[in-house]
Amino acid sequence: MSAPRTTALSDAPYVPSPEESDAIARMKELLGPKGWIDNPADMEGNLIEDRGIYHGRAQLVAKPATTEEVSGVLKLCNEAGIPVVPQGGNTSLCGGSVPFEEGNEIVLSLSRMNKVRSIDPLNFTMTVEAGCVLQTLQEEAAKADRYFPLSLAAEGSCMIGGNLGTNAGGTNVLRYGNARELTLGIEVVLPDGRIWNGLGSLRKDNTGYDLKHLFIGSEGTLGVITATVLKLFPKPRDIRTAFCAIRDVDAALELLQRARAESGDSVETFELIPRLVIDLVLKHMPDCEDPLETRYDMYTLIELVTTRDNDDGIEERFEGILGQAMEDGLILDAALAQNEHQRQELWKLRENASESQKIEGASIKHDVSVPVASVPTFYAAAAEAVHKVDPEARIVAFGHMGDGNLHYNVQEPEGGDTKAFVGNWDAYNRAVHDVVVSFGGSISAEHGIGRLKREELAHYKDPVALDLMRTLKAAIDPKGIMNPGKVI
Amino acid sequence: MSAPRTTALSDAPYVPSPEESDAIARMKELLGPKGWIDNPADMEGNLIEDRGIYHGRAQLVAKPATTEEVSGVLKLCNEAGIPVVPQGGNTSLCGGSVPFEEGNEIVLSLSRMNKVRSIDPLNFTMTVEAGCVLQTLQEEAAKADRYFPLSLAAEGSCMIGGNLGTNAGGTNVLRYGNARELTLGIEVVLPDGRIWNGLGSLRKDNTGYDLKHLFIGSEGTLGVITATVLKLFPKPRDIRTAFCAIRDVDAALELLQRARAESGDSVETFELIPRLVIDLVLKHMPDCEDPLETRYDMYTLIELVTTRDNDDGIEERFEGILGQAMEDGLILDAALAQNEHQRQELWKLRENASESQKIEGASIKHDVSVPVASVPTFYAAAAEAVHKVDPEARIVAFGHMGDGNLHYNVQEPEGGDTKAFVGNWDAYNRAVHDVVVSFGGSISAEHGIGRLKREELAHYKDPVALDLMRTLKAAIDPKGIMNPGKVI
Repeated sequence: MSAPRTTALSDAPYVPSPEESDAIARMKELLGPKGWIDNPADMEGNLIEDRGIYHGRAQLVAKPATTEEVSGVLKLCNEAGIPVVPQGGNTSLCGGSVPFEEGNEIVLSLSRMNKVRSIDPLNFTMTVEAGCVLQTLQEEAAKADRYFPLSLAAEGSCMIGGNLGTNAGGTNVLRYGNARELTLGIEVVLPDGRIWNGLGSLRKDNTGYDLKHLFIGSEGTLGVITATVLKLFPKPRDIRTAFCAIRDVDAALELLQRARAESGDSVETFELIPRLVIDLVLKHMPDCEDPLETRYDMYTLIELVTTRDNDDGIEERFEGILGQAMEDGLILDAALAQNEHQRQELWKLRENASESQKIEGASIKHDVSVPVASVPTFYAAAAEAVHKVDPEARIVAFGHMGDGNLHYNVQEPEGGDTKAFVGNWDAYNRAVHDVVVSFGGSISAEHGIGRLKREELAHYKDPVALDLMRTLKAAIDPKGIMNPGKVI
Repeated sequence: MSAPRTTALSDAPYVPSPEESDAIARMKELLGPKGWIDNPADMEGNLIEDRGIYHGRAQLVAKPATTEEVSGVLKLCNEAGIPVVPQGGNTSLCGGSVPFEEGNEIVLSLSRMNKVRSIDPLNFTMTVEAGCVLQTLQEEAAKADRYFPLSLAAEGSCMIGGNLGTNAGGTNVLRYGNARELTLGIEVVLPDGRIWNGLGSLRKDNTGYDLKHLFIGSEGTLGVITATVLKLFPKPRDIRTAFCAIRDVDAALELLQRARAESGDSVETFELIPRLVIDLVLKHMPDCEDPLETRYDMYTLIELVTTRDNDDGIEERFEGILGQAMEDGLILDAALAQNEHQRQELWKLRENASESQKIEGASIKHDVSVPVASVPTFYAAAAEAVHKVDPEARIVAFGHMGDGNLHYNVQEPEGGDTKAFVGNWDAYNRAVHDVVVSFGGSISAEHGIGRLKREELAHYKDPVALDLMRTLKAAIDPKGIMNPGKVI
């Protein structure tokens, strides 16, 4: 992808056609006074995303309160040819949830559809509306003595409809899967306003094509997810956390496989952290400490979870796995959290990785995945490619090793020329992504495509797959009103 | 659905058009002498399914050896308008894998595409061709010290392509999911012959619509799955099995929830078995025994699995769960297998359920699912509905309670009139399926739709979902050559 630039807004107001004006007027009537805003100042938060790269305009922000109102809005838009940008918490990292600059679109905010329709602890499910904030759902599940495992940095503001629309990942994918795997059913409003009630809560259903998987991860380009039935899990009763210095990335892979098998597949976290991340965190975050006395090149943060009450065996199991790995030279040293405070101290080293990079200077980010077993060779090959662009570039590649998903970021050289570094944006993208694809990997592991990576997708995606995607888009949204210019 | 009847074959041979004849001739040339048969006697096994309900005809059975040959066949068929019936092990229980009676179709057998392309134990994946027999794949995984959990009655002859095409279920779904959840990537030949190589082995990939889920479970109506990347798991090291007499279906639900939480979600089997099943098995299977001295109304077969070496704790955990449930009155009595022989003895009570029913007399079968927590109320409501048709009908409802999936079979009354019983076929279907749907359930939990349940699907499926399915079918297979008359 090209280096994203903050977009300039034209001063010329968008002039709607009479048909559009009429549709907007009817929409306002349908939604009632609480159901829309069109004052540019009031809409601002819906038109710009957090990082400020994209800043769009819109005819209106529609805020329907019910599925029927969403249906009414889409029907009007489809008839009048008004493009629609569905929006949840507006925390997309790829510009998927904000409109373009032209001003002809409307934003469809799901924020008022925020009811938990039901929680069924015995069935391990909850039925919720798209506008529920992720963290609220985690809390609601916990109140019912259940666990909803989706967890990611934006959980305090992102909404479940957006999580499903982008098939969100996060830190618990290794054990529980992405948002897709956590979903049993969805309710969708199609581009022409028809409502598909697919809110089943079945574990098995082989009655025709599995339509929900088409909408999950489609980033609002095929319809609007208005509600969902989510899977719940037994609540974790005990968590053990270790920060391990490891021999190298190969050792991390071996340790991951052993830990999975020996723990009965209850490894919830397996994060890879190179020394440079620790150095940056210690440099820029005053209250962080290196838990080990000696410097090492590579680390992993590992967590083992039990859902059993009084599972005294977890300590023994965890120490057994780590002890054997130490004996075999995979682990060089380790710090085990003895309590929740110590656990949080260890997590700070991981959680501050991005923020420390930002303070340190410019960095060019990639959200990539490769087959888990290829992580070690990929790690080396990608470094070689990056250093061909600039031997002084610093590689800050860390993240969800358990899923083969690394945040493969390139940090400007120490004391280097920032402008020259940023000028190599495209070259770094090409270097990293070429290697990723040569390993059968993905150029967007968990953040989606949105607007930011659309060209990159067109460059790398299998042409037959791209064509199939276009065929499906044309079939389901023939007028092309759903989030145009995003994904495909 | 109406009572299926053995279909009568017309004597008149199918007369192909000159265009079709030309396409068939070119197909034979493309496939070579080993790659096709067209002698009716030789084709017989490909034209009839095991239960003999459907007996079709075909112009040719094509047996391509490579993905490119599949591509060539579909291209020719698409151009000439010849309908194609993809076929794996031909073990469909719904007539999905055999042609109709007209004789204008060809059967596309994947049986020669049976190579295991690669096994990657460190990545926990294997890449295999569609014609691999399921049991062979289980064995290949085991040789690599890994576990491929898909397991079902036909595993000795069914093929993985068919398993994916029908999203097969089986006995290990509770812990590992259906065939869909076990699949990381697929290779598909589209109706026009284009090959989509979606053989990724990534755990995370958010680059556009998830196309694989569209083809999995589509029963060959959208394209032909020619190869797949499957997930592997750590191999079980110890299995504990118990046959428990339980208070009632409510107690089974409570026990299931407890066992999941207390075992760290390592319950691999949770089967519900009413007394009538045990009675029929003991009556008709001479080498089966009731493991408990007293008669009870309801039983569960439970298995707990560990993937850890020397996991001595599993016995304690299992007995802890069962002991507490006994104390609380959920379990009335239990037999624990002390060794593999005893385990097999317990499994025989479950595995002989269908065969015993068959010997006992006529039965009308339903493969249904409801939300797991609704199983107890569904169980009672469905019995009421069945007994409204005939108070003497015997209900043999057993199966995968852990997934909410019951084989809800109705057995003819003891000493009753078989003809009158079978005459009520449609009434029983309607009785059971109406109750299923009132619980938000599925009329085909794991067997698919095929030809047998097509009308039933049209009757029960949400009309918007049905219409979406038709839209997708028309978009991907505009000439309608892929397995026409099946599913939709």
